[in-house]
Amino acid sequence: MANEACGTHKIAGASFTVSPMSNNFVAIILDALKKADTSKVWMETDDVTTTVRGKMIHVFDVTKAIFLEAATTGEHVSFQATYSFGCPGDSAGDVYMAEDDHPLNAASVQDIKQFAAAKFSLYPLGGGNYMDIIYDQIEAMKQFVDVSHAHYSTRLRGETNDIFTGLESVFRATVEGGSSHTVMTVSVSANSPSHTEG
Amino acid sequence: MANEACGTHKIAGASFTVSPMSNNFVAIILDALKKADTSKVWMETDDVTTTVRGKMIHVFDVTKAIFLEAATTGEHVSFQATYSFGCPGDSAGDVYMAEDDHPLNAASVQDIKQFAAAKFSLYPLGGGNYMDIIYDQIEAMKQFVDVSHAHYSTRLRGETNDIFTGLESVFRATVEGGSSHTVMTVSVSANSPSHTEG
Repeated sequence: MANEACGTHKIAGASFTVSPMSNNFVAIILDALKKADTSKVWMETDDVTTTVRGKMIHVFDVTKAIFLEAATTGEHVSFQATYSFGCPGDSAGDVYMAEDDHPLNAASVQDIKQFAAAKFSLYPLGGGNYMDIIYDQIEAMKQFVDVSHAHYSTRLRGETNDIFTGLESVFRATVEGGSSHTVMTVSVSANSPSHTEG
Repeated sequence: MANEACGTHKIAGASFTVSPMSNNFVAIILDALKKADTSKVWMETDDVTTTVRGKMIHVFDVTKAIFLEAATTGEHVSFQATYSFGCPGDSAGDVYMAEDDHPLNAASVQDIKQFAAAKFSLYPLGGGNYMDIIYDQIEAMKQFVDVSHAHYSTRLRGETNDIFTGLESVFRATVEGGSSHTVMTVSVSANSPSHTEG
């Protein structure tokens, strides 16, 4: 029954958490959510995650902006997201599919320099040669940032803007390559006392 | 090429982050990692996540204990994990598969009362009726904690011990049901100022 619902929607989405490791976490999270222009996505925050839904370009634009706004406080910030396309199970946010393709936050955050370390995993669901798709996209990621192997994921190091450009690119390529239900998990860390930028 | 490697290993694993939203985050994380008995799992921490690998029972035992040790500080703690079984891609930690099935932390944390809100998503990769497996396991989760629908995930509310018992149960059922490569993402939040326990 359920598979029939897959692939009928073009809406992308992300469920994410931003965790500033600071006593001031409430203000940092609220400020970041406020500074990012989220008017082209459906957005809802509860006590576990924030969910955004809309066109893929805006989902990445908004999540990148929120993470960068939190990270530029200088605090150690951990960002965890699950991006999803296909099989939405419901229609909340469909009206946002009528928005244009101009990302509202790209200009304001493109010059922010913020080193980050990240891990991502791509899950093209629904069968097929899913491991080949994954390996192709890990290879493709190398044009954007430093890439290395990790357990259960691929490790990335570089500028936050480049990391998100790469993430959006491999996610889009997987969806456009025909995966009817694509999931990508992302963990990004900024200002970690454990980072070595070398 | 890659699919041939799937299902040949019985090793489970998790890549996770514990994010205490406190200026004291370094000590809280290090204390939690130290208090948990991790001698039956392979464990490695880098600047993005901590990875544990071993028998499924110990992977859940250790991750639950680390989260609970951090949460009982009373700080707002966010825990994000990706649990994985099958298709490991390498053999680090295989020696830990010789451990017995006695969970080392269960006794010390079973009486800890800690309300948490969580979201989980189950991804049985490699095709088949994966959505039916997901729906069955969401139903099965209801015997452990409060369950409700969320975007891209299923929302849980209850005692942390019950949440982890449920997570381990549905993950194990999916693996034992024949999924050669199973991934489960989990987000758990304790002591959030946004929680309403009602």
